[in-house]
Amino acid sequence: MEGMDHLAHERNKTEFDVDAMKIVWAGSRHAFELSDRMARLVASDPAFRKDDRTRLGRKGILRLTEEEAGQLRNFVDEPSFTDLHWGMFVPAIKGQGTDEQQQKWLPLAYKMQIIGCYAQTELGHGSNVQGLETTATFDPDTDEFVIHSPTLTSSKWWPGGLGKISTHAIVYARLITNGQEHGVHGFIVQLRSLDDHMPLPGITIGDIGMKFGNGAYNTMDNGVLKFDHIRIPRNQMLMRVLQVTREGKCVQSNVPRQLIYGTMVFVRQTIVADASTALSRAVCIATRYSAVRRQFGSQDGGMETQVIDYKTQQSRLFPLLASAYAFRFVGEWLKWLYMDVTQRLQAKDFSTLPEAHACTAGLKSLTTTATADAIEECRKLCGGHGYLCASGLPELFAVYVPACTYEGDNVVLLLQVARFLMKTDLLHCCCDVQRAEDWLKPGVVLEAFEARSARMCVACAKNLSKFENPEDGFAELSADLVEAAVAHCQLIVVSKFIDKLQQDIPGKGVKQQLQNLCYIYVVNLVHKYLGDFLSTGCITPKQASLANDQLRSLYSQIRPNAIALVDAFNYTDHYLGSVLGRSDGNVYPKLYEEAWKDPLNDSVVPDGYHEYVHPMLKQQLRNARL
Amino acid sequence: MEGMDHLAHERNKTEFDVDAMKIVWAGSRHAFELSDRMARLVASDPAFRKDDRTRLGRKGILRLTEEEAGQLRNFVDEPSFTDLHWGMFVPAIKGQGTDEQQQKWLPLAYKMQIIGCYAQTELGHGSNVQGLETTATFDPDTDEFVIHSPTLTSSKWWPGGLGKISTHAIVYARLITNGQEHGVHGFIVQLRSLDDHMPLPGITIGDIGMKFGNGAYNTMDNGVLKFDHIRIPRNQMLMRVLQVTREGKCVQSNVPRQLIYGTMVFVRQTIVADASTALSRAVCIATRYSAVRRQFGSQDGGMETQVIDYKTQQSRLFPLLASAYAFRFVGEWLKWLYMDVTQRLQAKDFSTLPEAHACTAGLKSLTTTATADAIEECRKLCGGHGYLCASGLPELFAVYVPACTYEGDNVVLLLQVARFLMKTDLLHCCCDVQRAEDWLKPGVVLEAFEARSARMCVACAKNLSKFENPEDGFAELSADLVEAAVAHCQLIVVSKFIDKLQQDIPGKGVKQQLQNLCYIYVVNLVHKYLGDFLSTGCITPKQASLANDQLRSLYSQIRPNAIALVDAFNYTDHYLGSVLGRSDGNVYPKLYEEAWKDPLNDSVVPDGYHEYVHPMLKQQLRNARL
Repeated sequence: MEGMDHLAHERNKTEFDVDAMKIVWAGSRHAFELSDRMARLVASDPAFRKDDRTRLGRKGILRLTEEEAGQLRNFVDEPSFTDLHWGMFVPAIKGQGTDEQQQKWLPLAYKMQIIGCYAQTELGHGSNVQGLETTATFDPDTDEFVIHSPTLTSSKWWPGGLGKISTHAIVYARLITNGQEHGVHGFIVQLRSLDDHMPLPGITIGDIGMKFGNGAYNTMDNGVLKFDHIRIPRNQMLMRVLQVTREGKCVQSNVPRQLIYGTMVFVRQTIVADASTALSRAVCIATRYSAVRRQFGSQDGGMETQVIDYKTQQSRLFPLLASAYAFRFVGEWLKWLYMDVTQRLQAKDFSTLPEAHACTAGLKSLTTTATADAIEECRKLCGGHGYLCASGLPELFAVYVPACTYEGDNVVLLLQVARFLMKTDLLHCCCDVQRAEDWLKPGVVLEAFEARSARMCVACAKNLSKFENPEDGFAELSADLVEAAVAHCQLIVVSKFIDKLQQDIPGKGVKQQLQNLCYIYVVNLVHKYLGDFLSTGCITPKQASLANDQLRSLYSQIRPNAIALVDAFNYTDHYLGSVLGRSDGNVYPKLYEEAWKDPLNDSVVPDGYHEYVHPMLKQQLRNARL
Repeated sequence: MEGMDHLAHERNKTEFDVDAMKIVWAGSRHAFELSDRMARLVASDPAFRKDDRTRLGRKGILRLTEEEAGQLRNFVDEPSFTDLHWGMFVPAIKGQGTDEQQQKWLPLAYKMQIIGCYAQTELGHGSNVQGLETTATFDPDTDEFVIHSPTLTSSKWWPGGLGKISTHAIVYARLITNGQEHGVHGFIVQLRSLDDHMPLPGITIGDIGMKFGNGAYNTMDNGVLKFDHIRIPRNQMLMRVLQVTREGKCVQSNVPRQLIYGTMVFVRQTIVADASTALSRAVCIATRYSAVRRQFGSQDGGMETQVIDYKTQQSRLFPLLASAYAFRFVGEWLKWLYMDVTQRLQAKDFSTLPEAHACTAGLKSLTTTATADAIEECRKLCGGHGYLCASGLPELFAVYVPACTYEGDNVVLLLQVARFLMKTDLLHCCCDVQRAEDWLKPGVVLEAFEARSARMCVACAKNLSKFENPEDGFAELSADLVEAAVAHCQLIVVSKFIDKLQQDIPGKGVKQQLQNLCYIYVVNLVHKYLGDFLSTGCITPKQASLANDQLRSLYSQIRPNAIALVDAFNYTDHYLGSVLGRSDGNVYPKLYEEAWKDPLNDSVVPDGYHEYVHPMLKQQLRNARL
């Protein structure tokens, strides 16, 4: 059976050009080739075996471009201190350091002569950066800052790479000069000796302990850090925006503060891109296994029915498949938006920043929440075997869920979107669906989603106006505001997917499949959020029922292409890391093989048998019902 | 700070008699005292420490009643082979064994001179018991059954306690006598030698490997088992219902087959009870931590706002608190239902069995799905720290989620409910809400939920009637049918909660709190499933908006009592196993202490530093961007 494709009968049903779809998914031929090459490189190198992880060994000896290295880290598929060094420490110096600071620190960081992390969050303070307690007090006598943790809750807590590895950190602290506070700023602080790695005097540092999952973020040394009056030179404050002079005066530079929001937009658009990656991995596993797994429905002792053919399975799985594509395309658009905003910022045009900021905040929230839920749903769609680590899904879930919390708690972000929406003018419109097929008209769909979003906003605004103090109203109505924000974000995803369909997309049948996916995403949302659409009068119960009919028809159309649509993600078996999601569908023999690798199976008679079990069986222990 | 109650200011706000509520929660004074005593016993015994688990050591030396032992196992709070021995092996012999078989096997099992497990599920077969492949072929020459695994997919897979510990199993296999199949039956099969624990000849046995979570079901030796023509005496088939004679003839006994459904009702009602337990644990942790955690909203450098005071937090947390109570009471009712059905079965009255079977199937599905989602939601409600194992929530989630799959996949179960509903007569009615307070009238609420459930059923029935073959219709419409089944199950939970409120409930303010919780449960469901209520015309958009207003008011009423309402669960800190959920609210110092216990912190300079990190920092490795 080795080498045989157990999913060949599925792949034979495909009605579109899978290679062309791979390019669409990757974004461009260049992106496809790059990621394909890196994925194969990692998959073929024993150093990156997932079943027998060894770290760091050979990672240092490859020579890659920055773009290649980024993809490679991605396919190595294990959180590690390098994520923070390259993803946060280096960008923070680039973005917030002066030219001088960049010249000094970046070469050290690039060559990894120092290893850096990003120490912002504290034990008692997460989302509210302005509430951080760590202080950086300027001492004019010595021209130094004194970094100090005044309370237990001010201990830095969570920074990845901090616990055991990093030599340096960007530490965020309240700046105090001449007895006055000047807000929270970043400081480059050395933590450990470069000779023997011991923490420098006055620095308490350690790992914060076990986290969710067997592997997941347990490969990362998230750390705790306390300062007892640590002194650093004045020029280690990141001073691109605000400078502290020799005398301890604060001087604003002419670099716009808004640049910081630009960085946030950047980080959050990468999170949206990562959401579509994580979601598509889970969907790939669940779709393939649903085609392999059979259950019930056998007649006269014949084969049972593939579970992917059950409508209940389709109605849970296919909307997630559609979401993977939807998030991919809205992520592409966000990447464009970020570049556009950056160019405008450089020309001192700040006009589009608030909307870009709200968009990325909202989409970060929407896509990460949906993806975390979807991974767990995919695990359930794999039945009992999804609970085995060999399915790859428990770890994917455990490693993914922090995305709902880091870089802005998802609910807090939606409230920011709501705040933006309450400042926006809104328009009204109405839905023109008379037959099920009308749900496939882009204009009709967009109008319905625009009307829903607008009317939910208007309802909130109306309720808000009843409060004397708008802030009280905002607090009291925040649950409704979050729902309005979700509606707005879904409108963005829907409209960007529809935009994508207006483009020229080569490859036989590719556009047709994308259209089906788009409308599965859309009509499933109508069904799932029916209360919104009906209560705002955007659609009628009859139109809702037609939407349901259309959804069933779309599921039937997507069904024969399901395996090919997940093949189009172009994931190696190595990257998927799932016996259930194997490309060749040879699930059961491999699951059976995998079991025997567990260390528990090294001995036939388990440890502890002679000490505990044998005496009990032989009644040498007084025993009871336990 | 040790010994101080950091939640005292919360407990001072309480408006009801917490001790009286503890009795209501436990079900009776006897139940309260029993569980309180066992919880304390386990919590005070170092053998059951959770941070340093040692197993079996002292478990055998306690003398307890069956009721006490059950509670004790519950508070030990770690899945182990004893769960299956006592929970499945013993009951299977009791339920399906003849008197003779019970006399032989039960004493051995009670004294644990043998350890048993329950081997039903196979690698390729889960929910569909009739699809099992293992065979038990009667050999009249030797008066034996030959147990055999004809294929790889027929390997038993998942049974807890099988992998390394059990000496015996109840094995389910297709009975074959005289060349004819007679369905799936249970057989007592010895697996391992009672002398040296080696698997008997012809038996391949092992552990199936790592599962979700760090601890969770990894403390259980879920196993794989293959038979190569194993022979057992004829009298080891469980023959209470069907007997195989010396000649190999099958003879139905006069014991009703329906007894097997009775057992299913029993197992599933315990799962519903467990759901309220798991949910209440998670809610207890999240509620207490939400009162400890502060974020944003500080003015003039004062204290930040407790996150439990944010409406967004309340709108996510309080419905879960209400659900914990709702599931508790519907679980009580199910327990009564089981006893009622059992008494009727003994009197050969099978009339209520189909409804009882549908009820328990549906409620098993509804409560386990809601609980799994709720635990994860509670974890998110604890922000970043919820991701630490020290929060107790990752493990609670990992150990709980299998409940959605075992004892009947939740979607398959809902389809069984739907099948039952399609046979039922339905009535119509209409909602009479004019002011927000009208949502607090039991009659009004029940009518709305009855109407919604009935109309969704009628709509399904109408669509089904369009199909020539009803089975085709059932398959095609199964996603809609599942939704109708959910509506029906929610109606049951709502009506049982309302029934509970009609009872005499002593204790100052207790009934008022239960009323608030009941209507939070109810009105939140109206909001969450608004599409159902509006599309079936059961309520109007205006009534929906009034429901929303009422919900906000209910949240404000429950807020001051939130901590006391979770205190009423009477969970020890040991049982909760959560730093965030500590009864005294002393979260941060304990979290800080906990971190240093991680083995990674045993050494200041981590393993591997000299081998990997130092050479990199000193550029003795050629390096690149990684």
